[in-house]
Amino acid sequence: MNIATPAGSDARALPKEPAPRRLADAIRILTIDAVEKAKSGHPGMPMGMADAAVALFATALKFDPADPEWPDRDRLVLSAGHGSMLLYAALHLTGYPGFDRAALEAFRSYGSLTAGHPEVEQAHGIETTTGPLGQGVATAVGMALAERMLNARFGDDLVNHYTYVIASDGDLMEGVSHEACSLAGHLRLNRLIVLYDDNEVTIDGPADLSFSEDVTKRFEAYGWAVVLVEGHDHAAVAAALARAQASDRPTLIRCKTVIGWGAPTKAGDPASHSGALGEEEIAGTRRALDWNYAPFEVPEEIARSWRRFAEAGAAERAAWKRRYEAADPTIREAFDAALAGTLPQNFDRIIADFKRWAIERDKPEPTRFSSGHVLERLVPAIDTLVGGSGDLTPANNTLTAGQGTVARGSYAGRYIHYGVREHAMAAIMNGLALHKGFIPYAGTFLAFTDYCRPAIRLAALMEKRVIHVMTHDSIGLGQDGPTHQPIEHLAGLRAMPGIRVFRPADAVEVAECWALALRHDTGPSILALSRQDAPLVRRGHTEQNLCARGAYILQEAGASHRATLLATGTEVALALRARVRLEAEGIGARVVSMPCLEIFELQDDAYRAKVLGAVPVRIAIEAAARLGWDRYHGGAGGFVGMNRFGASAPAGVLYEKFAITEEVVVAAVKARLLD
Amino acid sequence: MNIATPAGSDARALPKEPAPRRLADAIRILTIDAVEKAKSGHPGMPMGMADAAVALFATALKFDPADPEWPDRDRLVLSAGHGSMLLYAALHLTGYPGFDRAALEAFRSYGSLTAGHPEVEQAHGIETTTGPLGQGVATAVGMALAERMLNARFGDDLVNHYTYVIASDGDLMEGVSHEACSLAGHLRLNRLIVLYDDNEVTIDGPADLSFSEDVTKRFEAYGWAVVLVEGHDHAAVAAALARAQASDRPTLIRCKTVIGWGAPTKAGDPASHSGALGEEEIAGTRRALDWNYAPFEVPEEIARSWRRFAEAGAAERAAWKRRYEAADPTIREAFDAALAGTLPQNFDRIIADFKRWAIERDKPEPTRFSSGHVLERLVPAIDTLVGGSGDLTPANNTLTAGQGTVARGSYAGRYIHYGVREHAMAAIMNGLALHKGFIPYAGTFLAFTDYCRPAIRLAALMEKRVIHVMTHDSIGLGQDGPTHQPIEHLAGLRAMPGIRVFRPADAVEVAECWALALRHDTGPSILALSRQDAPLVRRGHTEQNLCARGAYILQEAGASHRATLLATGTEVALALRARVRLEAEGIGARVVSMPCLEIFELQDDAYRAKVLGAVPVRIAIEAAARLGWDRYHGGAGGFVGMNRFGASAPAGVLYEKFAITEEVVVAAVKARLLD
Repeated sequence: MNIATPAGSDARALPKEPAPRRLADAIRILTIDAVEKAKSGHPGMPMGMADAAVALFATALKFDPADPEWPDRDRLVLSAGHGSMLLYAALHLTGYPGFDRAALEAFRSYGSLTAGHPEVEQAHGIETTTGPLGQGVATAVGMALAERMLNARFGDDLVNHYTYVIASDGDLMEGVSHEACSLAGHLRLNRLIVLYDDNEVTIDGPADLSFSEDVTKRFEAYGWAVVLVEGHDHAAVAAALARAQASDRPTLIRCKTVIGWGAPTKAGDPASHSGALGEEEIAGTRRALDWNYAPFEVPEEIARSWRRFAEAGAAERAAWKRRYEAADPTIREAFDAALAGTLPQNFDRIIADFKRWAIERDKPEPTRFSSGHVLERLVPAIDTLVGGSGDLTPANNTLTAGQGTVARGSYAGRYIHYGVREHAMAAIMNGLALHKGFIPYAGTFLAFTDYCRPAIRLAALMEKRVIHVMTHDSIGLGQDGPTHQPIEHLAGLRAMPGIRVFRPADAVEVAECWALALRHDTGPSILALSRQDAPLVRRGHTEQNLCARGAYILQEAGASHRATLLATGTEVALALRARVRLEAEGIGARVVSMPCLEIFELQDDAYRAKVLGAVPVRIAIEAAARLGWDRYHGGAGGFVGMNRFGASAPAGVLYEKFAITEEVVVAAVKARLLD
Repeated sequence: MNIATPAGSDARALPKEPAPRRLADAIRILTIDAVEKAKSGHPGMPMGMADAAVALFATALKFDPADPEWPDRDRLVLSAGHGSMLLYAALHLTGYPGFDRAALEAFRSYGSLTAGHPEVEQAHGIETTTGPLGQGVATAVGMALAERMLNARFGDDLVNHYTYVIASDGDLMEGVSHEACSLAGHLRLNRLIVLYDDNEVTIDGPADLSFSEDVTKRFEAYGWAVVLVEGHDHAAVAAALARAQASDRPTLIRCKTVIGWGAPTKAGDPASHSGALGEEEIAGTRRALDWNYAPFEVPEEIARSWRRFAEAGAAERAAWKRRYEAADPTIREAFDAALAGTLPQNFDRIIADFKRWAIERDKPEPTRFSSGHVLERLVPAIDTLVGGSGDLTPANNTLTAGQGTVARGSYAGRYIHYGVREHAMAAIMNGLALHKGFIPYAGTFLAFTDYCRPAIRLAALMEKRVIHVMTHDSIGLGQDGPTHQPIEHLAGLRAMPGIRVFRPADAVEVAECWALALRHDTGPSILALSRQDAPLVRRGHTEQNLCARGAYILQEAGASHRATLLATGTEVALALRARVRLEAEGIGARVVSMPCLEIFELQDDAYRAKVLGAVPVRIAIEAAARLGWDRYHGGAGGFVGMNRFGASAPAGVLYEKFAITEEVVVAAVKARLLD
């Protein structure tokens, strides 16, 4: 571990005049002005990392504000999202669309581009949403992986860029960053460069209240290169960046910084982390930095120098554009299609063919197996589909024949062994989706969505298409017991805005739900799949996707319609068996399959009312928590499911013990008809 | 990193006859017999780690099956919970109550002690529930911390033991183990010893498919000692254990092992990880190990040797008992009370006094501040209450005056700076609770319960009293924006069995909910607290805990009762304001405060019906997701809350933008009365 020394002659050099310090001060002052105006925000990090940011923008980052979505731009992730003003100030100074002075003045106000924490707006230079610590670093691993994978497909001419991250102590303490960085080291993602704001301060006080690990050694253990620099020495940071660019492994640049640098009394103090500095401290900062300009004002000389940083990127973009236009049209077309994430023309045909095959085959099987069969057809047809698993590949049925594995130095494959790192897996998938070029899916057990939630939530918030193949979806997994049996997970996921939770009943519904998940390109989808056998519940083939309205009448009442049975997943077959008994007793019962409650909620009132039926009894059946079902079954007693954790025993025993049986359903209907 | 060499003369030595290998083979064979009988389970790990387990039980572990709950026993955590048969076999062989042969034969059957993954039964030798990877290691950090903290209070005579962990590759890949091990190194928890089953195999295949980090270097970076041993060399493992016991820091013993050791064709193969080996392979294993006994049969010579391992512990327990009985009675009493987790006699008085004080004070304040004020009274009164925060102490209001901080080598304090490690924090709290001696509470933001969920779930499953102080509980936190604003979290937590989610409306309810959380000693509690001001909604003092039934009539309708407004937290004040308007228009409206839906569900039908009221309109108001509220408000339109993610803006703006206002409530009531 050495203090890096300048690398000598660089294509892009730091400006001499105005001095880099002055350029960094522009970030500092814009930050404290914006935080002061909003009376809220986090000045400490931008003030501490402003110098490193100047080095990054001046000498390393490949960007062009004239086309923020240029595919071969470098990605910049502000993992320490609370320091959002660092990013906003830099986007303002370099001339990104929308980041005019008014945007800075609107910091943290409703509807502004300048939200409290960065919210993804790639057309404006914000690559991803950050704020929950650790997520940015892990997402950036996904972006850096996407770059190598896309490079393996389209070559250096079209894909050849870096992913930069600005991260804090907090980011590196979060488990998800450990997971993701371990995998980044394993895969040797050498285009990933993390600037670590090593300021030795956290909210509670000095970082060493809780954090005394040897970060250099830790990252070296992960297979990273680590460089230690004085974070206020622009030339040193620039040299470290140059070294990192040339490294054969991901690089952590430890920037030793002072939080709140420039503030006369608060620099180096945890108090500078958040909150407006106050008029006096701001005046003192202006004096200390010799900054004699009004709030939000940047002298033209400094503004011009910042804008000049984009020149190298503009030239590179022009050159890239020439290469792109010179490329083989079929390659260009494939490249465009990959970035657009479009599905192939024959997509609906593939799904329909599968459904027909499944119905002809008529074989009870776990829905996770059905999902595997669907993938066997989809993976060859959709070049951009990239799978993986949190070390449960044989259980999740996520790997298809000939898919090829991504490995160190070999990125042409389409399957990622994430290891037992569910959280990083979910965040890396977000990064793959954000980068563009791939549609990521990966699996673990449904119970372990708990490990992934912060990243799933970000996918929902960012409206990104990420598909989670969550198998072992109920007590039906049996003997592995309550730690592995999801109870509350379906409800907990359904509560999340923007997500689609699919629990298909059989092979046909699995195919339909896969189609809906792939078409849902404005948010994540969860496929909840069974470990145990599910018989076919759909008997006649139809081209139509019956799951597309969220719920549908699977089997109409025979006798006069008195009861509606609502069910999902493996409980749909149970509902059908209960229906047979009810009909035998002259009670007309309809079975409604509800693979996706969120989509059902989007239907008009008339459709929903029609499906539910105006009957005396509705019973909802799901081997999971009741929360959320009261909306449909109409009152107490109308739910057959779980009200406790599961247990370790064979699945059949558990359904009996926990009273999720056709007898119980029949009795519930009859008791309520008698009421 | 060195291969450890035997340390010479130990107080406890490995037996010479029968050879340690034979003793390990007993674990191997019992494992494969049990898995074969259950037709399900995980033989690979117990077969690979059986030798290390013999070394542990024979030479290091302080245990006495005659009193599995002896407070000064060593703790043993099987973090790789899928290898449960390793633990069960050892408990059987050493003579733990309940672990007779029938228990092994009942492996993975309903109601048995021998569940698929270990489920906490301390009276039988199972220290904690494991299975979700990483949790065991992190929980063990909490146990090891509890030991040092209890030692700081009661001295070596009463508290002086180790915490051992058996962990797998998967455990060490999980982020939560990174977090927890970093903190364990920081705090120099030298009584923590992890036996790492370094078998280079995961489910997907060779571990190096996804895992190539230098584990030794990583743990050294965390401040651990690391020893590398041949895991099938009993003497080497025993020597490593002796070295670890003498270390001034936590120790990772890397046991190089072969998964499924002893199985003729499956040893070293990922296929041995899970599933019955099958008759042929079992017969082959018996031949290979020269084991000529019937299933589940252990020859007396081997059984006797195993039982002898407990002798040292029995003697130590006798000596401990003498020291305990010789101790000062007040110390003994305090020790017993700490272990029992009893609350002080004057507990109810403290709560009542606080409520009186709050009402007299009549000051609007964030409920997180009120929680801080309650803690200022509780912490001095309850010696066992141990606080902390995930680096949000000033925001969570979790630290009280004079509480004292836990630091490296100094464990007398009562506050833990967990760092930005929410997941480890939750798991470590589980360990503190499981160890006994402490009632843990700690804080982060409610949105970041997502980071903690796997550990919160285990607390619920294990029925352990762990209190999460979750502040910034809604869009009311304002400008930090949607990444920090919980929407789905209340619903997602309420869906979990065994948990109590409290969302108090004002300072008085905060005190009442703290009382309920502390009295809820069979599961975790979440206190959801506001960042923004909450005015007092409780005006007259009452000694009675009105929150104790989950929901109660806060203000009765004045005019003839037509509508009931149900609300939680800061929305209760909004409901009261809406009520004023409704009453002014002659519409009788009742306001019900519902601080804990789970407790309300436990009340009898009559009480619930009385509180809700048989009225034409019920409106539920909560600035969060609707999921779960349909049970109470009775149908569409009866919910005023969030149906999307939040945004970055001041709280007042957000409540307006998202239509959570008294006007909207009034309009909703009137529209439904007109229907």
